[in-house]
Amino acid sequence: MSIHLIVLAAGSGSRMESDLPKVLHQIAGAPMITHVLSVAHAIETDVRVVVVGHGGDAVRDTVINLDEDIRVVEQDQQLGTAHAVTMAVPVLKDATGDAVVLYGDTPFIRPDTLSAMSAARKDGADIVVLGFNAADPGRYGRLLTDGDTLTRIVEWKDATEVERAVTLCNSGVIMAEASTLLRLAGAVGNGNAAGEYYLTDIVELGRTEGLTSKVVTCPEAETLGINTRADLAAAEAVFQANARRDAMNNGVTLLAPDSVYFSYDTHFGRDAIVEQHVVFARGVTVESGATIRAFSHLEGAHVGAGSVVGPYARLRPGAELSNDVKIGNFVEIKNATIADGAKVNHLSYIGDAEIGAETNVGAGTITCNYDGVFKHKTKIGERVFIGSNTMLVAPVTVGNEAMTATGTIVTRDVPDGDMAIGRPRQENKTGLARRLFQKLRAAKAAVKKG
Amino acid sequence: MSIHLIVLAAGSGSRMESDLPKVLHQIAGAPMITHVLSVAHAIETDVRVVVVGHGGDAVRDTVINLDEDIRVVEQDQQLGTAHAVTMAVPVLKDATGDAVVLYGDTPFIRPDTLSAMSAARKDGADIVVLGFNAADPGRYGRLLTDGDTLTRIVEWKDATEVERAVTLCNSGVIMAEASTLLRLAGAVGNGNAAGEYYLTDIVELGRTEGLTSKVVTCPEAETLGINTRADLAAAEAVFQANARRDAMNNGVTLLAPDSVYFSYDTHFGRDAIVEQHVVFARGVTVESGATIRAFSHLEGAHVGAGSVVGPYARLRPGAELSNDVKIGNFVEIKNATIADGAKVNHLSYIGDAEIGAETNVGAGTITCNYDGVFKHKTKIGERVFIGSNTMLVAPVTVGNEAMTATGTIVTRDVPDGDMAIGRPRQENKTGLARRLFQKLRAAKAAVKKG
Amino acid sequence: MSIHLIVLAAGSGSRMESDLPKVLHQIAGAPMITHVLSVAHAIETDVRVVVVGHGGDAVRDTVINLDEDIRVVEQDQQLGTAHAVTMAVPVLKDATGDAVVLYGDTPFIRPDTLSAMSAARKDGADIVVLGFNAADPGRYGRLLTDGDTLTRIVEWKDATEVERAVTLCNSGVIMAEASTLLRLAGAVGNGNAAGEYYLTDIVELGRTEGLTSKVVTCPEAETLGINTRADLAAAEAVFQANARRDAMNNGVTLLAPDSVYFSYDTHFGRDAIVEQHVVFARGVTVESGATIRAFSHLEGAHVGAGSVVGPYARLRPGAELSNDVKIGNFVEIKNATIADGAKVNHLSYIGDAEIGAETNVGAGTITCNYDGVFKHKTKIGERVFIGSNTMLVAPVTVGNEAMTATGTIVTRDVPDGDMAIGRPRQENKTGLARRLFQKLRAAKAAVKKG
Repeated sequence: MSIHLIVLAAGSGSRMESDLPKVLHQIAGAPMITHVLSVAHAIETDVRVVVVGHGGDAVRDTVINLDEDIRVVEQDQQLGTAHAVTMAVPVLKDATGDAVVLYGDTPFIRPDTLSAMSAARKDGADIVVLGFNAADPGRYGRLLTDGDTLTRIVEWKDATEVERAVTLCNSGVIMAEASTLLRLAGAVGNGNAAGEYYLTDIVELGRTEGLTSKVVTCPEAETLGINTRADLAAAEAVFQANARRDAMNNGVTLLAPDSVYFSYDTHFGRDAIVEQHVVFARGVTVESGATIRAFSHLEGAHVGAGSVVGPYARLRPGAELSNDVKIGNFVEIKNATIADGAKVNHLSYIGDAEIGAETNVGAGTITCNYDGVFKHKTKIGERVFIGSNTMLVAPVTVGNEAMTATGTIVTRDVPDGDMAIGRPRQENKTGLARRLFQKLRAAKAAVKKG
Repeated sequence: MSIHLIVLAAGSGSRMESDLPKVLHQIAGAPMITHVLSVAHAIETDVRVVVVGHGGDAVRDTVINLDEDIRVVEQDQQLGTAHAVTMAVPVLKDATGDAVVLYGDTPFIRPDTLSAMSAARKDGADIVVLGFNAADPGRYGRLLTDGDTLTRIVEWKDATEVERAVTLCNSGVIMAEASTLLRLAGAVGNGNAAGEYYLTDIVELGRTEGLTSKVVTCPEAETLGINTRADLAAAEAVFQANARRDAMNNGVTLLAPDSVYFSYDTHFGRDAIVEQHVVFARGVTVESGATIRAFSHLEGAHVGAGSVVGPYARLRPGAELSNDVKIGNFVEIKNATIADGAKVNHLSYIGDAEIGAETNVGAGTITCNYDGVFKHKTKIGERVFIGSNTMLVAPVTVGNEAMTATGTIVTRDVPDGDMAIGRPRQENKTGLARRLFQKLRAAKAAVKKG
Repeated sequence: MSIHLIVLAAGSGSRMESDLPKVLHQIAGAPMITHVLSVAHAIETDVRVVVVGHGGDAVRDTVINLDEDIRVVEQDQQLGTAHAVTMAVPVLKDATGDAVVLYGDTPFIRPDTLSAMSAARKDGADIVVLGFNAADPGRYGRLLTDGDTLTRIVEWKDATEVERAVTLCNSGVIMAEASTLLRLAGAVGNGNAAGEYYLTDIVELGRTEGLTSKVVTCPEAETLGINTRADLAAAEAVFQANARRDAMNNGVTLLAPDSVYFSYDTHFGRDAIVEQHVVFARGVTVESGATIRAFSHLEGAHVGAGSVVGPYARLRPGAELSNDVKIGNFVEIKNATIADGAKVNHLSYIGDAEIGAETNVGAGTITCNYDGVFKHKTKIGERVFIGSNTMLVAPVTVGNEAMTATGTIVTRDVPDGDMAIGRPRQENKTGLARRLFQKLRAAKAAVKKG
């Protein structure tokens, strides 16, 4: 099965109350439209066309950036779904095979569902419409059937009481041979109250030609459409609930699932442990047996087997932790590789760096990687002891089994086995603290007295 | 419409298991009593009287601090709601117009509801009682009606089976002409099992005088009364759910609404983004297009358009961020103005300071604002580069386009364009680290051998 | 009442998808098996036997570590619950008194429930089975009764329609005289489809001997059994909901109960306040009137009356805060006593230390307690002022009313009243910053030009 996708993403989404085009609002770290197009990872697709309108340039950029093979066409005026589908004619006019119409604001249609629609096509249906049994059908369009044949799609406002009692509703997703789909979409009229060209009308047009229509159903949750930010939050919640359940089924321990947030591409090994209040932004992989402690935030990071991250650790893009690494509290790691068994336990910033195996980085250490314009690199060897509050002014290299004394500002390379030190001598000024306290107290008393 | 408010806030709240008076327990950052009195922001009120008893001084202070025009009267003995209302006689004895009785532990009555009660008064009802249709009426008092006339309020324990089947319940909120209300409250007797003077009895007293009573209803959620900490948590949850929904309706993106907590006075511009696990304490405004990243805590702060705060940023009272400011992880900002485009990205404490436009503050920077008694100010100019781990010993000023070298302790002003530096020379002691490691390992081995 | 406990903990728990034995997975910071054995804190127990199998050594270690008086026996082959019980014969063969069979993966059976079973034994029942009325009985075994006599336990697959309509289900928990229990368990056969020895069969065996069986019931929630990680998360949620409710009932203010996580042994004084997003790991006590602010993480710590911790404070094991202590943001405290009124407000690491009363520790202070092999101690006196970014290289002592200047590296003791200082002189290099900025901009331009 290889099908053409037509994704309608031209709506303005005014109910989002946003300057961002609706289909670019994110779920689990990826724009809605990316979720829609991700079915292509699981089923074989042929041409993919996205119809853009409102905020078209931003949507185009996002889509092209995802895969430059995706075709983007513009619908200048939003005249209805059938009209939108006809925008794909220039791209698909010579296409053979089936095409399916999806929606940029309906991100959860599963590949299995499209496969089931394809199977119905193979079984002889000329047009296949995706329906769902609604718990509360409300004002959805109803699918009227005779046996397994779809006889008519009736809008709620045109429906009789008997028809409104039907709970089988229309998702809007339609599959047919590409040429049939485009031809019928082009034949749809706009003689209705709204003056719009409705794609659903192709079922009736097909019927007059003797084409058969069938219904395939999916769970209602798949058809969740997003029109408001509250819908968006609901969709996010659905995604997160599924991701948490899947992670647990795959052998991940979540101490408090409801307080952990995943991205669409978070990956875990078996027996990974995730404590409370953790956020996984995009691009994170956590290996088997690693522990992500409470209040950690990870993005674009890899955590090796047996490593412990947090609490309060922030791993930024390019953080590559090997095995049995320990990253502690109030530590930020960015674009840095940390080798086996190395530790950065407290209050440190490690950016643009390499840290060797079994090295211990003391509290308050900072890689001074930025000179105001350029970023520079810090290399630290194996089994090194970096004393507390060491400033590593990059570019700089610290050799294997070297040490830095507490508070050293390292501006020159430190050879293997050497100790870098640069420190003023401590003096104890006798009684000075006592005299200062007295002066401060006197000043305070004077202020109070006024 | 201008009405007198009588707020009963004398109850001991023993079921709270707290030394704090019940009405001072907070919802969304403000004491319950403040929520009750906030109806005065939306409707025109005349005299406001709060009746205090238990913990009276603390309640008085809170109320007076809110608005010194509010009158506070004391009820020494808690003899019942009618008795409590009569405490307002000295304040309202010459008052004309209507008065309404509210309760310090029932914080969600909406201004619209009071307006509806006022309208019922204008329509001719002498006494207006606020009722609600209870999902589970339990032991609430029932409102017995004949058409839209309230004939009687019956306590649950005195009610017949038929009366208990009524779901219209009494909220306790009552409105009448002030003189009528006070006169009837004073006429109420205490000939009941509890020996208390019940305000609800004024309906019966009024009836014997030929006064008419009507019921106005509101949603049950408005009448939520707080008697236990679990009730308090439930009220907080109701507030938060409403605040999250309102924010989303107004165009704010909440990645995970359930993990974000608002105060009663949090304000947002359109297309502000709030990530997971964020707390807004009192007095925060976030402008349009700003992003509050995960694990941030804001209080008394202003975040300008396009600014990015967090993750793990703490903005304390007096943090004034202009536009396109960046405050990063493990950074605390207190009583400081940060001008357009300035950045404080890592592990810093900026207190009692001014930071100029486009200035970059390096990791580990601290404004040493406290000498043990007084706080002093740090001023940093525009386009300045503050090197990592710079200590700014206030009072001190750094000029425009100046720099500080990593690790500098700045005790004197730095003129425009100058570089401040103060740093001991780094020495590399050849082989010293290796020798120290050997010694330490030997000592460790000796300890183990023991 | 003193009873013998037989805890079956030999199951492999393959549905957990984990290398950790099932009964060692944790709820609220303690392994499941620990929760099961904790009934012994509330009722008098005699011999406690744990039957281990899969992952037996790890389970044995955990159990023995809990209390070395607990006896551990091994079941090499998992042949069924009756077989498992017979493993206890060597330990209990001479025991008098009652024994009860519990399950390592059913952690919420309450002591009261066991007492009720004991009472039923005293009332003459030879065998007492714990049942529960299931909301959804599904495939649980059904308890068939005649009056209060248990006539038969029927497995779902063997049950008739009428029997399946029974909602009284079998928890598996059984109590009888120890000798009776072991004798009957040994007599059970395995002539069933699974070829397993089922403990429930002792009811039928007893009946043929003329022994009476009775049912005692408990709420279904007590019998929650854990087979998957989703079950584990559900059990954790039940525990947390109970703990939050109990805390509130006892006079603790929880601003956002759902965002706060407790351990099995967290203790609070009245009027303690806990803000949003707080984690209490094992071994924490918070005294009356203390406040734990948002985003804090506590483990093995004591917080004295009136102290304020957080936001973003991490208290690690051995953190002992006396009264009115203040620990602020991005501060880590480990194995340290902090005396009355002392403050550590910002970005500090205090480990292996003593801090005296009324002492103020400045931002960025670090106790350098680790030399790469050993940990050393820092002692700071009373009313001391530790300047920002002070490095305390342990072992070291700072006397009462002493001061350290900002940025001092303290390697030698500071006597009472002295000021320790060690700081290079700040120089302002005239115009150097401006020249450097120009150079950097030129370099940047050159890079862009390429």
